[in-house]
Amino acid sequence: MPTQIIVLNGGSSSGKTGISRCLQAVLPHPWIRLGVDDLVDALPPALLDGAGIAFGQRGEVEVGDGFREVEAAWTAGIAAMAHAGARIIIDDVFLGGAASQERTRAQLGGLAVLWVGVHCEPAIAAAREIARGDRVLGMAVAQAELVHRGVSYDVEVDTGRTESLDCARAIAAHVV
Amino acid sequence: MPTQIIVLNGGSSSGKTGISRCLQAVLPHPWIRLGVDDLVDALPPALLDGAGIAFGQRGEVEVGDGFREVEAAWTAGIAAMAHAGARIIIDDVFLGGAASQERTRAQLGGLAVLWVGVHCEPAIAAAREIARGDRVLGMAVAQAELVHRGVSYDVEVDTGRTESLDCARAIAAHVV
Amino acid sequence: MPTQIIVLNGGSSSGKTGISRCLQAVLPHPWIRLGVDDLVDALPPALLDGAGIAFGQRGEVEVGDGFREVEAAWTAGIAAMAHAGARIIIDDVFLGGAASQERTRAQLGGLAVLWVGVHCEPAIAAAREIARGDRVLGMAVAQAELVHRGVSYDVEVDTGRTESLDCARAIAAHVV
Amino acid sequence: MPTQIIVLNGGSSSGKTGISRCLQAVLPHPWIRLGVDDLVDALPPALLDGAGIAFGQRGEVEVGDGFREVEAAWTAGIAAMAHAGARIIIDDVFLGGAASQERTRAQLGGLAVLWVGVHCEPAIAAAREIARGDRVLGMAVAQAELVHRGVSYDVEVDTGRTESLDCARAIAAHVV
Repeated sequence: MPTQIIVLNGGSSSGKTGISRCLQAVLPHPWIRLGVDDLVDALPPALLDGAGIAFGQRGEVEVGDGFREVEAAWTAGIAAMAHAGARIIIDDVFLGGAASQERTRAQLGGLAVLWVGVHCEPAIAAAREIARGDRVLGMAVAQAELVHRGVSYDVEVDTGRTESLDCARAIAAHVV
Repeated sequence: MPTQIIVLNGGSSSGKTGISRCLQAVLPHPWIRLGVDDLVDALPPALLDGAGIAFGQRGEVEVGDGFREVEAAWTAGIAAMAHAGARIIIDDVFLGGAASQERTRAQLGGLAVLWVGVHCEPAIAAAREIARGDRVLGMAVAQAELVHRGVSYDVEVDTGRTESLDCARAIAAHVV
Repeated sequence: MPTQIIVLNGGSSSGKTGISRCLQAVLPHPWIRLGVDDLVDALPPALLDGAGIAFGQRGEVEVGDGFREVEAAWTAGIAAMAHAGARIIIDDVFLGGAASQERTRAQLGGLAVLWVGVHCEPAIAAAREIARGDRVLGMAVAQAELVHRGVSYDVEVDTGRTESLDCARAIAAHVV
Repeated sequence: MPTQIIVLNGGSSSGKTGISRCLQAVLPHPWIRLGVDDLVDALPPALLDGAGIAFGQRGEVEVGDGFREVEAAWTAGIAAMAHAGARIIIDDVFLGGAASQERTRAQLGGLAVLWVGVHCEPAIAAAREIARGDRVLGMAVAQAELVHRGVSYDVEVDTGRTESLDCARAIAAHVV
């Protein structure tokens, strides 16, 4: 079955967005990009706090039930888009490691998913976080290894060693 | 049945985004905002041309089959989000007027939808397009009346006469 | 002497940026837009706190000596641009009212300045602040009247009653 | 004399902005960032064409007299900011190579300037241009080597081999 969804999992500032743009450029079919950042942008102010998702001053992210409910509906919607024929690159951050992957796997049940680990050494991700200038400092280090705990992948890339476009090419070779 | 989806239809620069943010602020439950602009942002470069969606230098928008296919999957996904419990404000531009509404109505079948017409006099929308500075000039005038042709609404607002927050309150009174 | 600088003074969300874009569109010569927001964007993280400029959670803005020093150099630079022939629209917020105007007037000494008051009722500015979605709520109300205290103008506009483009035309009529 | 201005010269997508943010983080004093992109953002629509600055569909940049005039006033203003005590990081693209440097050197006369060459192999810059997704493709390759022709530097860095933060530390070691 042809790949329907590509899940890129990696910590903040690991380079997922750059890779997803490059994937759009190198893959022969049209793929659309949707990520947890898009969900956060779509949320009402009332969910940008403890009941929803909150970003602390040292890079910690706290997620409440209110966010989890909306996120589940969001992922159900992405699954429906894929069932309806759209090819989708999901840019995600598995804060719960293996448990997050299991939850996502269940939500994407029946779809052909390519699981991609986007690694980046904490020190390099932290440096890129400073260079971006649009993220709370500390998220990169806090998430760099945490998000990969117990997660299994079809392909893994390291943006500290390989440019985004080459990472994308390596991933594209696994898209069927 | 409680309202599950609010569809805001209006031309470019008619003020839909402002109203949708205000709706998020005044409605008691959490609503998420998703619009055609989010779909366009998610597209690969290959669909930002004649086969997909193209924005001409005088404000004309040309939509091809490639875009229509992805858009249908996108809307199917939004419907699934709503079926899964999310409350969604859709920010749309019915370039095909009544035909666009019929297509959307079919895609959202079985859901409780509140249809909202967001009007704005062409001259005022054109002036706001200049003030925004991030849109091709001409879209506002080209779309201001076109998008409402033959469309039927549950509630209509005019952002040329009423501030966004008051428009949102008028709409919120129809959300059940 | 032809007008060299247009200073737009108004509270947050009063509509200064929209007016300045419209001024660029309606004025016959090229004018460049520079505002206090551009200065804030240019600052290092170390000045985005108590020693520099800090934005509180209820819309209050605290300005320290570190910011005042950089701001004085910034304004000296804008004055030099105008002396060198550039026409400049400054988008400012006189948190100190008349005292801010006097300081600015001294810094722009020798230049032909058009002083413009951009008014907007606090309730309307607060509503627009919600509609924008990118500002801390409370700034609009906190600043709406404060910034005009004791300030004298060549022309005044009210964006709650007049669209940005028409405000710009009214201002443009005073540019010589 | 202590360094008053740091000029970063490099082609589009060579990584100047990331380095300048990192410089702000590692330098002990407050430095403000201003670049040619800020000038372009400040321009009226009338200067975003042949008479001003125009960006072609294949990455070529055409600069007319209208832009040169405003740019000269802009640089005079930055020089004045530095004379008034501000420390400034300029992010520039010397499309004219050595001639651009000579013009800038004259405009910054009397100031202590640190000249920094930001190199990046054309292929890597082109890949990053795809990953960014907000630039016309082709600018990176067109400018990568052109902007360094005949330019002399106090320090040179290569973002294809060194992360932005480490480039910034290497540059900071030359700031006196």
